[in-house]
Amino acid sequence: MNNEVSSGQFSAFEYEIRVRYAETDAMGIAYNGQYFTWFEVGRTEMLRAYGLTYCEMEKIGLRLPVIEANVKYVQPVHYDDVLTIRSRLGAKPGVRVRIHYEILKDGELTATGFTEHAFTDKDLQPVRPTRHIREMLTTIWNQSQQNDNEG
Amino acid sequence: MNNEVSSGQFSAFEYEIRVRYAETDAMGIAYNGQYFTWFEVGRTEMLRAYGLTYCEMEKIGLRLPVIEANVKYVQPVHYDDVLTIRSRLGAKPGVRVRIHYEILKDGELTATGFTEHAFTDKDLQPVRPTRHIREMLTTIWNQSQQNDNEG
Amino acid sequence: MNNEVSSGQFSAFEYEIRVRYAETDAMGIAYNGQYFTWFEVGRTEMLRAYGLTYCEMEKIGLRLPVIEANVKYVQPVHYDDVLTIRSRLGAKPGVRVRIHYEILKDGELTATGFTEHAFTDKDLQPVRPTRHIREMLTTIWNQSQQNDNEG
Amino acid sequence: MNNEVSSGQFSAFEYEIRVRYAETDAMGIAYNGQYFTWFEVGRTEMLRAYGLTYCEMEKIGLRLPVIEANVKYVQPVHYDDVLTIRSRLGAKPGVRVRIHYEILKDGELTATGFTEHAFTDKDLQPVRPTRHIREMLTTIWNQSQQNDNEG
Repeated sequence: MNNEVSSGQFSAFEYEIRVRYAETDAMGIAYNGQYFTWFEVGRTEMLRAYGLTYCEMEKIGLRLPVIEANVKYVQPVHYDDVLTIRSRLGAKPGVRVRIHYEILKDGELTATGFTEHAFTDKDLQPVRPTRHIREMLTTIWNQSQQNDNEG
Repeated sequence: MNNEVSSGQFSAFEYEIRVRYAETDAMGIAYNGQYFTWFEVGRTEMLRAYGLTYCEMEKIGLRLPVIEANVKYVQPVHYDDVLTIRSRLGAKPGVRVRIHYEILKDGELTATGFTEHAFTDKDLQPVRPTRHIREMLTTIWNQSQQNDNEG
Repeated sequence: MNNEVSSGQFSAFEYEIRVRYAETDAMGIAYNGQYFTWFEVGRTEMLRAYGLTYCEMEKIGLRLPVIEANVKYVQPVHYDDVLTIRSRLGAKPGVRVRIHYEILKDGELTATGFTEHAFTDKDLQPVRPTRHIREMLTTIWNQSQQNDNEG
Repeated sequence: MNNEVSSGQFSAFEYEIRVRYAETDAMGIAYNGQYFTWFEVGRTEMLRAYGLTYCEMEKIGLRLPVIEANVKYVQPVHYDDVLTIRSRLGAKPGVRVRIHYEILKDGELTATGFTEHAFTDKDLQPVRPTRHIREMLTTIWNQSQQNDNEG
């Protein structure tokens, strides 16, 4: 997979975005709440790269709302900066899915964070994901573990 | 009605908001796209003041998506500025609803704009609004006209 | 102070906001990243209520960027919901300031979270806050402790 | 230039984006105010493609704030849609710069709009752009006209 990287720390999926003016604030840097949108882009593209689109999950009636979100800001980022979002599963997926993120600029860490998600139906009531979804998430998890061992 | 004002130009509904840090950009001013959220707040509160909540319209299956939006920026506004959003119907409501806005700071005009809306069902297909909705919008329109004549 | 509340758990500053359409997403609920803007509104108004505006801090060259942010989503919230943001200092303020938040709807908890902030100059380099700022934050802290004891 | 297209209507610069969940609203479509961020992305990348980055303009003290913005919504767009933003200069650049946009999905028009900009210094006072900037904008304009004649 093109965008997959294996560092000493973990193997992850990488996706590049560019900071929009709309995403900055009067401090001249990206607004703190904006990072959660970038995390969304990171996990969406990670799942897509593994053949699982959030859009299709929605079509079969599944939702994956965020139940906890966290970010630690290491260095501010600015308008027009090209950022790399590194996303990876943070634990073997079960009834919950945890995803870890690193945001890098020119190879340097600017932020870390995670989101935790629960499977629900479209009325946001907890449900068990379909077997297909569980198998795909397990595949992503196993693959990232293998890469760790090889890397 | 508490928040209704009658100026030489037109009678309108006024609602105050305060500029959030999240709404500013690296130019140190409110981001240009942000104004359309303020317009949304203005029209929502104008309708509510007349007894018509967008929320209830949604519950009976109506939607009122924006089909055109325009803003002219007169003076930039900054973080923590208290702004007055003046909203009024821009024409007798029919199959479409046009709303005009003025954004003021300390009594001075900082932006003007309008949004035009069409009635649709929840699948965003054009529909005729219910009689109740039409009558309420006509009442708002008539009242604003009366105020103009009196003002 | 008008908006101050004292519960069994802690004394905090309360501020009401209403969920905007712009703040919702296709799941029909408020977007997860949006909560950090509400936290911003909560702490801004808490500081203002105690005579300390972030705007004035900026004018004397201070910035208070977020260095960590966290939210736990308990119940989804929807368009037009009236939410109460409860904010309080989470620890005696020093070189860092931690603020805790609770978001309530109709008295029921919908989310909790915190932000941690560092004092910097306008170039985002760490600085020691002025004595005046330190004293004001200590006053807020002491007052919330007293309220806790009395409550 | 890779992303330049020449249609019967006009020659323009094309840039693709994907609709983020954060950009949708409870109607299940992209929020009306969001389009102005996409317009920003479109003009930023058009200028970059011609060797002119907004970032560099800022470094020499120039700003190009929006003084008017307009959008007409033709068809709603949804989460995960891949959109093409077509941007082009709308008139020979002078003290003001007008940019026209078309947003397409699968080759079909979903929205049109424009933004008009004025050159200012960093305090947002009107200034004349540098000769270099004027020449570059004229080059973009001439090139788009030539393409129109050839197309």
